[in-house]
Amino acid sequence: MITIYGDSISGNCLKVKWVAERLGVAHEWVEIDIMKGETRTDDFLAINPFGQVPVVAFENGRTLAQSNAIISYLAEGSDLIPDDAFERAKVQEWLFWEQYSHEPAIAVRRFQKLYEKRAEEDIDPALMAKGRRALGRMELALLGNDWIAGGEQMTLADISLLAYTRLAHEGGFDVSEFQAVHGWIARCERELGLPHLHEVTDVQV
Amino acid sequence: MITIYGDSISGNCLKVKWVAERLGVAHEWVEIDIMKGETRTDDFLAINPFGQVPVVAFENGRTLAQSNAIISYLAEGSDLIPDDAFERAKVQEWLFWEQYSHEPAIAVRRFQKLYEKRAEEDIDPALMAKGRRALGRMELALLGNDWIAGGEQMTLADISLLAYTRLAHEGGFDVSEFQAVHGWIARCERELGLPHLHEVTDVQV
Repeated sequence: MITIYGDSISGNCLKVKWVAERLGVAHEWVEIDIMKGETRTDDFLAINPFGQVPVVAFENGRTLAQSNAIISYLAEGSDLIPDDAFERAKVQEWLFWEQYSHEPAIAVRRFQKLYEKRAEEDIDPALMAKGRRALGRMELALLGNDWIAGGEQMTLADISLLAYTRLAHEGGFDVSEFQAVHGWIARCERELGLPHLHEVTDVQV
Repeated sequence: MITIYGDSISGNCLKVKWVAERLGVAHEWVEIDIMKGETRTDDFLAINPFGQVPVVAFENGRTLAQSNAIISYLAEGSDLIPDDAFERAKVQEWLFWEQYSHEPAIAVRRFQKLYEKRAEEDIDPALMAKGRRALGRMELALLGNDWIAGGEQMTLADISLLAYTRLAHEGGFDVSEFQAVHGWIARCERELGLPHLHEVTDVQV
């Protein structure tokens, strides 16, 4: 049994839950409310000195932070990571890109808009431009490919990128502009048994 | 023989060079000048659609981007990556943290100050605060430890974090405030056969 400390509003935390569920890793979820400052308490910093969710605690007391490091560890030896060393490296390439070029634009804009309730004019316009570039980069990779890393099956790269791409509309991004990405979101949701957020959104609109 | 496309002013690119040299990986370096827009040319985008350096090309024509993905691939099976799966995960934790919480503050502030020649008042004050938090987090990890991931020998986590920590003074950070980090920089430089930047700086001051 592992303990996942996470905030349900955070895509970074949901990645860990999805991978644990997919691989049948027994886990309990402890809800940590970022907005209430629960990642900054002494108790939490004792678990994760980085002061961030997600963090996972194992039965032997050891802890591991950073969403993509956690899912890489949990999925080691599973079909979510290719056997071939170079294909594995290409999955890692996407994981690092996600944290550097995708999340800081798409997740941050969503956070400011949805949770900090900032008006459009109070959001740095660079975030929209950077987020759209990231979605464009994904579109390029998904033209003619079912999965982002280009192989025959879903990998950690898909799960990692799904987390905030699926919620990008909450950050003001129009994902329907990126048709291959749009189709890929539904494909990932099917594979992971998640509800189809974008179809629901379409109906509501 | 691998080809490293990199800009010598970029710590992210130097990481790759250091690991290749350390492990005796035959390589040639092709200088790509970021300031001249050479990462945005059609020729370069054909090599790396992410439009970023570093990128490595292998003899079979395959390419790999993202500095930490590249060094992880080059170092597989070497003593720069622990054998134990959990210790390996802790190295990855630092690699992801470096790209999310360290580089976007310390490398970005250095770039704006040193290369864009921005005045102090034109630099977002959040970068100094975020960079100091990152250095403080490293200090905590290095109190009583020679190496950042806590083991008995240098790992990729040290090499990755060294790249911009060693150059933090060029971004206006006073690394001498963080004594364990200061000692660790010299330790890494010795281990990698690099000149001691900070001793030189001290003499000049």
